[in-house]
Amino acid sequence: MRTMIKEINGEQEVNVSGWIHRVKKLKAVVFVILRDRSGYIQLAVNPEMFGHLKLETVISINGFVVSNANKYGQYEIQVKKLSVLSEVTEDLPIKINGESLEIGMDTMLNNRVLSLRHEQESAIFKIQAVISQSFKSFLMSKDFTEIHSPKLVKEGAEGGANVFSLDYFGEVAYLAQSPQFYKQMMVISGLERVFEVGSVFRAESHSTVRHLNEYVSMDLEMGFIESEDELMAFETELLRHIFSAINHSCSKELTCLEIELPIIPEVIPTMRLEEATELINNMYHKELVGDLDPESEILIYKYMYELTGSEFLFLTHYPKQKRPMYTMPEGNETKSFDLLFRGLEITTGGLRIHEYQQLVDSMLEKGLNPKQYEAYLEAFKYGVPPHGGLAIGLERLTARLLNIDNIRRTTLFPRDRNRLTP
Amino acid sequence: MRTMIKEINGEQEVNVSGWIHRVKKLKAVVFVILRDRSGYIQLAVNPEMFGHLKLETVISINGFVVSNANKYGQYEIQVKKLSVLSEVTEDLPIKINGESLEIGMDTMLNNRVLSLRHEQESAIFKIQAVISQSFKSFLMSKDFTEIHSPKLVKEGAEGGANVFSLDYFGEVAYLAQSPQFYKQMMVISGLERVFEVGSVFRAESHSTVRHLNEYVSMDLEMGFIESEDELMAFETELLRHIFSAINHSCSKELTCLEIELPIIPEVIPTMRLEEATELINNMYHKELVGDLDPESEILIYKYMYELTGSEFLFLTHYPKQKRPMYTMPEGNETKSFDLLFRGLEITTGGLRIHEYQQLVDSMLEKGLNPKQYEAYLEAFKYGVPPHGGLAIGLERLTARLLNIDNIRRTTLFPRDRNRLTP
Repeated sequence: MRTMIKEINGEQEVNVSGWIHRVKKLKAVVFVILRDRSGYIQLAVNPEMFGHLKLETVISINGFVVSNANKYGQYEIQVKKLSVLSEVTEDLPIKINGESLEIGMDTMLNNRVLSLRHEQESAIFKIQAVISQSFKSFLMSKDFTEIHSPKLVKEGAEGGANVFSLDYFGEVAYLAQSPQFYKQMMVISGLERVFEVGSVFRAESHSTVRHLNEYVSMDLEMGFIESEDELMAFETELLRHIFSAINHSCSKELTCLEIELPIIPEVIPTMRLEEATELINNMYHKELVGDLDPESEILIYKYMYELTGSEFLFLTHYPKQKRPMYTMPEGNETKSFDLLFRGLEITTGGLRIHEYQQLVDSMLEKGLNPKQYEAYLEAFKYGVPPHGGLAIGLERLTARLLNIDNIRRTTLFPRDRNRLTP
Repeated sequence: MRTMIKEINGEQEVNVSGWIHRVKKLKAVVFVILRDRSGYIQLAVNPEMFGHLKLETVISINGFVVSNANKYGQYEIQVKKLSVLSEVTEDLPIKINGESLEIGMDTMLNNRVLSLRHEQESAIFKIQAVISQSFKSFLMSKDFTEIHSPKLVKEGAEGGANVFSLDYFGEVAYLAQSPQFYKQMMVISGLERVFEVGSVFRAESHSTVRHLNEYVSMDLEMGFIESEDELMAFETELLRHIFSAINHSCSKELTCLEIELPIIPEVIPTMRLEEATELINNMYHKELVGDLDPESEILIYKYMYELTGSEFLFLTHYPKQKRPMYTMPEGNETKSFDLLFRGLEITTGGLRIHEYQQLVDSMLEKGLNPKQYEAYLEAFKYGVPPHGGLAIGLERLTARLLNIDNIRRTTLFPRDRNRLTP
């Protein structure tokens, strides 16, 4: 077994393993920077013992720890024995031991295993893991139950055409666009408060820096709530918990990425969508109707940031025609909201219709056939608490938090219409 | 907002909401048992106020808590005001307020939202949520990073034909059978220790009580290990943590299901597969070659249980032809194992090949074309720590733990060749 580098203290014989990150050859000694998940340490190796090992070769060494301040710490290891665990024989296709990875997005993704060895890239996913874990731990502390809903579904489409379909033993199945129907059904089943962090699939053929064809949705749904305001207050508290967890667990990663997390205001400002649209139309001579485009989302964010100092903004009261059939209406608008974070939508949420007949009518109004939603509709016949919920896109939240423009960089193995590998 | 039933103490005015679980009508009073996720409470309601509400109607009431010992607690609520949140107008298709649900599996699954209202059914999923959460929390405490690997893959098949395929913008994509390749790649990327809890897909057309076409795999993979013994010791510790978490958080659910968790021995017994096969062949006059069938797995479990008192058994040294191409060989056998729990395989694990050429050779030996694994193979060129891992089937572990025969009962919405809905 290897000794973790961080466990080394004082002069003692140790055994450590890792990747050869950097090499500096002098006549009498080779200085090797060894890397593992805990960080870096300098090794002093006899040139004959080192031979001609290439960068990224995995080695295991025995040696003595001695005081010798260097860029990577207060100690170095004088190596007595070196064994190669995995030799690299080819030159690396990308340089990964520089200050930053100076490569394009495609090169980064084509070489995902190597590009993640740069600490600025792996830091993104260490932070992302804390986001999803703290999402879950917050909800568990609020008596939510984690669920696993099926990704192979028959009643998959929420009314859009952007679903992947496949042959399922002679039947047509769809890949779930969201766990929406199932999380509602689980609230109705009496679990009342449920969450799921899982993959969702959108067969959208456009290619933008904000869209993926497969992404991770952090979904929650809760019963016995009366207004969408409760959901917005709940999400504010949830985000505060997540940010606090990141600050607590990821100081090394935040420093590496030169990120300071934004302050979440006590109450995140809200604005009616209609008001936002008028404001943008007036200020920027646009002619938006009924919704904001991505550019306007940035403009309204900047406007509100100037006004309130908040980098978050809830847009509320979306019109009925912009929301799915299960959204609770209020006149021609809905009891729903989006959360913009630095001008990017990271959440859609709202109250849901909980009356059977109202839901059927809403489907008909949207031109949908209630017969295609039989199993979902059936759940609304036998006692449904008023309920609502929201979903946060994990990759989008990660991207905005870390000031990353392209969502692909916050996805280990992104799927877009041109990329199905690695 | 509603008041949680469990927060009631002493005589005070309260507001609670929930489902009408049982009704007993007397001349002067209707006794209603109200149910929510926290449990049950008895209400005393004026018959006129109650009217003719049906079972499972969702109501919200105001009233005074008074001492009155009954089957469900020390208190009842004398209702002053009752509002209906969601009225039930139809008779229930299944009876859900009996001691147990006396219905067949298909009826249970066709009425999933209702059948889950029985506390014996929801208890299964509350325990399951603790299993997956404690799996994650244990691994995080061991410095593992949670990953999300793609479910849409191009290099999907590990050599079998049992994959679902679909059209992905003109290309053929597969649904991932496991995160195997990706979790290995993430170890190799330098994260070293990773886990994922997510959906996996198997297009197997057989229908048994032990198989599903979509299930939740709890996967882990770790670098810098030297032997499969380390993995087995690690899993033993992991299971002990999970069981302890269940005992800590789910005493109500365990009581409801009349379950006492088994003791996990300090060291789980191991047996070479060959030895197990010979033993079964000799004792039961069978003619097994190279692997156990489900019946033999039960027999070997019973044999070892008699001998050691352990309900767990690691079978080791599976022959090469029974294991996927990435498995580390040892002569004609492999450094791999299965964990049987009460005679059911709940885990497959082992060391992996970490040398590029050995992996290519292993593919060729299996008749696989290395060209079809290009992205995966590429990762093995640039420094790969010795590594291994394992996967636990969430539904199978839940089923064995709770003495449930059919895995469908431990899946919210099971998918088999005849079931794609609800």
